[in-house]
Amino acid sequence: MSEKTILDYDTVALDDDNDALVIIDQTKLPGKIELLHLHTAQEIWDAIYLLQVRGAPAIGVAAGYGIYLLAKQIDTDDFELFYEKFCEYKKFLDSSRPTAVNLSWALNRMEQVALCAGRQEHRPVSQIKELLRREAVAIQEEDIAICKAIGEYGLTLVKPGDGILTHCNAGKLAASRYGTATAPIYLGAERGYDFHVYADETRPLLQGARLTAFELQSAGIDVTLICDNMSGMVMKQGKVQAVFVGCDRVAANGDTANKIGTSVVAAVAKQYGVPFYVCAPTSTIDWNTPTGDRIVIEERKPEEVTEMWYEKRMAPDGVKVFNPAFDVTDASLITGIVTEYGIARSPYTESLQEIKRKLGNG
Amino acid sequence: MSEKTILDYDTVALDDDNDALVIIDQTKLPGKIELLHLHTAQEIWDAIYLLQVRGAPAIGVAAGYGIYLLAKQIDTDDFELFYEKFCEYKKFLDSSRPTAVNLSWALNRMEQVALCAGRQEHRPVSQIKELLRREAVAIQEEDIAICKAIGEYGLTLVKPGDGILTHCNAGKLAASRYGTATAPIYLGAERGYDFHVYADETRPLLQGARLTAFELQSAGIDVTLICDNMSGMVMKQGKVQAVFVGCDRVAANGDTANKIGTSVVAAVAKQYGVPFYVCAPTSTIDWNTPTGDRIVIEERKPEEVTEMWYEKRMAPDGVKVFNPAFDVTDASLITGIVTEYGIARSPYTESLQEIKRKLGNG
Repeated sequence: MSEKTILDYDTVALDDDNDALVIIDQTKLPGKIELLHLHTAQEIWDAIYLLQVRGAPAIGVAAGYGIYLLAKQIDTDDFELFYEKFCEYKKFLDSSRPTAVNLSWALNRMEQVALCAGRQEHRPVSQIKELLRREAVAIQEEDIAICKAIGEYGLTLVKPGDGILTHCNAGKLAASRYGTATAPIYLGAERGYDFHVYADETRPLLQGARLTAFELQSAGIDVTLICDNMSGMVMKQGKVQAVFVGCDRVAANGDTANKIGTSVVAAVAKQYGVPFYVCAPTSTIDWNTPTGDRIVIEERKPEEVTEMWYEKRMAPDGVKVFNPAFDVTDASLITGIVTEYGIARSPYTESLQEIKRKLGNG
Repeated sequence: MSEKTILDYDTVALDDDNDALVIIDQTKLPGKIELLHLHTAQEIWDAIYLLQVRGAPAIGVAAGYGIYLLAKQIDTDDFELFYEKFCEYKKFLDSSRPTAVNLSWALNRMEQVALCAGRQEHRPVSQIKELLRREAVAIQEEDIAICKAIGEYGLTLVKPGDGILTHCNAGKLAASRYGTATAPIYLGAERGYDFHVYADETRPLLQGARLTAFELQSAGIDVTLICDNMSGMVMKQGKVQAVFVGCDRVAANGDTANKIGTSVVAAVAKQYGVPFYVCAPTSTIDWNTPTGDRIVIEERKPEEVTEMWYEKRMAPDGVKVFNPAFDVTDASLITGIVTEYGIARSPYTESLQEIKRKLGNG
């Protein structure tokens, strides 16, 4: 029997019989593949907050299963009592990470199912719980299909042998199966495209080194790890023909919040004439947020920069640290936004509305 | 008695009585201030290669003292035998780092002293050794004066209360007393300018976190540590009015080799309209290298990226790594090159020749 690899696991899974949300603890990678079984609201909140599960689409899937499992535990037949408690759980889970829109998107979607079934259709609570389960499963299944569609569209933007740079992890570990930014890479690999991938390590939490380099290497893809500040060098040397990144929230004008450093990659790509693509399931597009200025950026604790992961402290005691977890890339720096309904291009205010129309008809 | 701080030590010093080159081991900072006493050619080579002493000007000073100490050990009265051995040592030391021009600049300067005194003036070897000592001391004393002059010119480019971003360490630890990129900061602090400094941590070896944040904090300057990929965020927020960086080699057209990531900061600064200044003692200007394409970029071992400083390996085993130690910033991205003879501006091919003329008359 051969040892299991990361490819044998789902990033997020439901173990309904044991009332558990099962995730790969991403903070332990690449050293160890450890599964966590989460049962309580606090455990689920912690897993999202501590980035044991991370990546906008994966957070959405985890939130769907999470709120279902918590709803399942609500012990009442009265819908209004059920709904009140449901909303408490929802609000609590929603507070675990402020930037990724998928968290509230998935929770709102689950709430709508409960509301519709309870208030409009007057179904019993037990049936509502079953509807919630189906909705959570649907979120994950749709995510797989969406990632694949993004991969197909993304693949039209590159050619065999191209160098592709990616930042952070918008891979299988951040979403289902194909990932978002990695979807063109995985699909291309299946079709013999022989890409050369450059993975930014992505400080401070090194998702690129720990997760992207790991999952691509596990899948047999040619991947080279670089520090974030080496993007200028590889682009100047002509090694990169396209940048693909994921996103946590896209504003209606195309401004895109994604892992800190994404806007730096975009500025560098512009300098060297390399096209810069954002891979965005429509669930990450927030049509209610007009521009990136309105996106709340999570700031995290200084120790992530000064000592986390280190065997010794690598910065002086007491030094001031600025540690934003995300930044916003101006729409003007983005060559295209790749969704499951096609590729939006500037002017995004119009092209994203067009995507919204397709979504409405979808 | 109060404990000594980093400000009480010279980065590089000569202990002539004990035939030792004394350096602060910069790989131990900020945890520990440890002095190394180097005697042999191998010890000096290792200290430069392992970055125990680093920073272009400091390497120049160390090379001057180092080659003097090795010359002092050559046991012969015959100049030609002395010179042959001197050249062996010189070639060996020169091989320790390929990118910084100050290494060969200082060694060549020392060689000229030996050659002139030996071949033209026919002085005895003992006297040549004394001349070499004086030349090495002069290199260090000039470095102090040069850094101060760079600080004075640099200070004309900013105003009190400005935010200044710097990359890597071109501070006191990289040069003498004022540093180069930090010279305007230290001089400004003496004059009440109240700068807010942002220090890029500078992966992979974290010279910004370990050295720049440390020395500026020790000097009571307001410094905030950021990851390299946060420069876009702080510039977009309007927190940075100028970037000052050091350099390892400036080509005749202004293209500048400096620590990996410098060209990324420059591209980001251009995107947000922030002026980008290179602080360059004329010893780092290489008029024999026409453009940056001709500058050899040192590549270092993958472990610096995948595991150095870490308590556990942070990237998968066997992953490919690209680890260039420097990059070249296009002259087109540089607002000004601040030398001890004034500020050169585009077109650099002309303005750097003007600096060369001043140097010739200096």
